[in-house]
Amino acid sequence: MSDQVKYLLSEEQMPKSWYNIAADLPVPLPPPLHPGTGQPIGPDDLAPIFPMEVIRQEVSTERRIDIPKEVRDIFRQWRPSPLYRARRLEKALGTPARIYYKYEGVSPAGSHKPNTSIPQAFYNKAEGVRRLTTETGAGQWGSSLAFAGALFGLEVEVFMVRVSYDQKPYRRALMEAYGARCVASPSPETESGRAILASNPDSTGSLGIAISEAVERAVQSPDTKYALGSVLNHVLLHQTILGEEAMLQLEMAGDYPDVIVGCTGGGSNFGGIAFPFLGEKLRGGRDVEIIAVEPAACPTLTKGVYAYDFGDTGHLTPLVKMHTLGSTFVPPGFHSGGLRYHGMAPLVSHIQELGLISSRAYKQLETFEAGVLFGRAEGILPAPEANHAVKGAIDVALECKRDGRARTILFNLCGHGHFDMQAYIDFAAGKLKDIDYSQADLERALAGLPKVAA
Amino acid sequence: MSDQVKYLLSEEQMPKSWYNIAADLPVPLPPPLHPGTGQPIGPDDLAPIFPMEVIRQEVSTERRIDIPKEVRDIFRQWRPSPLYRARRLEKALGTPARIYYKYEGVSPAGSHKPNTSIPQAFYNKAEGVRRLTTETGAGQWGSSLAFAGALFGLEVEVFMVRVSYDQKPYRRALMEAYGARCVASPSPETESGRAILASNPDSTGSLGIAISEAVERAVQSPDTKYALGSVLNHVLLHQTILGEEAMLQLEMAGDYPDVIVGCTGGGSNFGGIAFPFLGEKLRGGRDVEIIAVEPAACPTLTKGVYAYDFGDTGHLTPLVKMHTLGSTFVPPGFHSGGLRYHGMAPLVSHIQELGLISSRAYKQLETFEAGVLFGRAEGILPAPEANHAVKGAIDVALECKRDGRARTILFNLCGHGHFDMQAYIDFAAGKLKDIDYSQADLERALAGLPKVAA
Repeated sequence: MSDQVKYLLSEEQMPKSWYNIAADLPVPLPPPLHPGTGQPIGPDDLAPIFPMEVIRQEVSTERRIDIPKEVRDIFRQWRPSPLYRARRLEKALGTPARIYYKYEGVSPAGSHKPNTSIPQAFYNKAEGVRRLTTETGAGQWGSSLAFAGALFGLEVEVFMVRVSYDQKPYRRALMEAYGARCVASPSPETESGRAILASNPDSTGSLGIAISEAVERAVQSPDTKYALGSVLNHVLLHQTILGEEAMLQLEMAGDYPDVIVGCTGGGSNFGGIAFPFLGEKLRGGRDVEIIAVEPAACPTLTKGVYAYDFGDTGHLTPLVKMHTLGSTFVPPGFHSGGLRYHGMAPLVSHIQELGLISSRAYKQLETFEAGVLFGRAEGILPAPEANHAVKGAIDVALECKRDGRARTILFNLCGHGHFDMQAYIDFAAGKLKDIDYSQADLERALAGLPKVAA
Repeated sequence: MSDQVKYLLSEEQMPKSWYNIAADLPVPLPPPLHPGTGQPIGPDDLAPIFPMEVIRQEVSTERRIDIPKEVRDIFRQWRPSPLYRARRLEKALGTPARIYYKYEGVSPAGSHKPNTSIPQAFYNKAEGVRRLTTETGAGQWGSSLAFAGALFGLEVEVFMVRVSYDQKPYRRALMEAYGARCVASPSPETESGRAILASNPDSTGSLGIAISEAVERAVQSPDTKYALGSVLNHVLLHQTILGEEAMLQLEMAGDYPDVIVGCTGGGSNFGGIAFPFLGEKLRGGRDVEIIAVEPAACPTLTKGVYAYDFGDTGHLTPLVKMHTLGSTFVPPGFHSGGLRYHGMAPLVSHIQELGLISSRAYKQLETFEAGVLFGRAEGILPAPEANHAVKGAIDVALECKRDGRARTILFNLCGHGHFDMQAYIDFAAGKLKDIDYSQADLERALAGLPKVAA
């Protein structure tokens, strides 16, 4: 049997700083705008919802930002995470490609999300915050913030997208076991939620709606702040620890990626794996092809428009320039709840506009087929979100087989699927369907984009 | 915040052999007997169900048995597993005790069970076997054997105890994702199962019944063998890798356990953590107190009798001398399916008889309270089985607090609870009850013990 190879770093090799791609961008990121004035927003506009250190990181152009020692001390529980050479998968595919994956399912919450929930909780705690509110799709982010809240003694309130709340009771139970309060969104507890429920009592919810509810709650209480699990610059910054580690681990393997594949919902795990390598390229180092993979049912990068839009459905956030399907677009209820977001990280959108990455969309069923193939070869059953990256990596490996090219592929396996087994039950029973979005809904949502000078 | 400390070994430090406690026992283990003749059985009696290398290990008295390189190559994916100093838990308890836990939830199946499923699959494959049958309680063992089967290209058929089959669909889905066939037990597919169903169509099943079904199936097909996940000597042998690692890791910490706590169902994770240290003591090394923790609803070590009994309910296995509640005892349907076994490993039973260990029984609710306390402090939500070890360790730590003693406590956290969240949902909702066994059933089962000269 061809066996996996595991590349492990010592605790001393864990990165002590995050990499900020803003320092190396050939064109600066378009600034967020105030929806009322159309002018760039300043730190004061964000102060009601974020602590100052997070705001500072959001707008920083320093190349390296220190990871606080207190945060690294917690990370040590599961970091540095392993990098694997997927030799058994390579053999199953009969590909000459070398496939490596970074595995973030080793965290206590089972995904990459604690990489940012821990520092966010730390900064909030340091600035005297008592309660954090947030949204969650599949529940990976909500459970990670709940974990962080338990460690720092912060109350955590999670607005969980209704369809996931119903599909994934296990994730919800994990949040509650950590001591968090979990509310199905849209909820009757906020103005934003009540407005949605009034027009559609059966709304399955969306990340855009849940963000509105969580932001609304934070704005109303002085001791409460809001924490976001993806999309924003500081979140992608925090996730670069995984790409930085992967770079050191590939050095141990004596290899370097020709292709990097990541799945994209809000863009944080993708940014985490891709940015350190992209920065290398932007500074004149080695070239690398970077592929973002998204669900065909929520095709932000492949079918969205690049425009200023709200981050939430209730229009409480600033306007950010990104690939968007329109802030009122409600994706169908497929199983990758973490990828059901109408927008995309401004940083990821920007680098796609600059031609630095390409994107692909896959349907639900083919990603589950890829996930089961991967699970039988490598032993780890991926989260539905991660199945998109797996499918992308397998497709590149099969292209290598067809072309007889021994390329090096790196992807991020952002989480395990242990909380998502209902999706695998449905898949095995033939009940999982490819769900498509409604073209009319998409057009309606895009027609409602705010009018802003670009 | 007081932070955890993680002790990690390099791959090179992974043990290359298992420790066999049979070499150091002051009194030899009573042999298994043939139920017909009452005479000790020989290798030929076991050949229909086990491969020869497994039988050799079952009866071996060599102190060290090599772990095949092929097996170690697979173990590398997650081994050596981490040992943690639970500083956050210590602080939450306010105890002067030092609490260490070995964490086996890092395996792809989420528990310690692959430590034996991988070598068992390897030996079967090497001897030309094509299909493995087994039983499973909570599903930890079944999913681990399914994982091993996927790696070695062996068909796997799992008889899953009915109550767990219904309570834990996620574990079943994991087995099926790995390609195994999973059948609720008692099933209409075997004589043993049909006999139980005829007398009680609503039987919740038990490990004893499921073992009968799996053994029956193996005996009937020449290319099919049976694999057991606990109880037998070779299984406990395979689990010593975790105790051997823990010993090296405690050496790194400059510490040595005063008390070892393990949960016991069949006894394999308990033997794995305890035997290497007990062997040290038996060879004149340091003393250590060892405590086995079991569910009060299936109190084999604390309420059972030490006698020759069948390992299964259908009476297809040899007789082994062990603490037993009687082979027809059906434990109530509490959530720790992995601990619902009428018997106990002969090795664990024997050392309790020799006064080398003590045992305690806990009720369901108090173990979940301990698990949630542990989860909030340490971030890892344990499997319900592991909650028994957590509760035992916390109680010892609180005794240390009362007595002002700074003892060193080691326990094995044998698996995470990510597949068992229904139990946590019920617990949080106040629906989880302490379930007791029926005294009349116990007496009836004990009255049916086979008559054998001891």
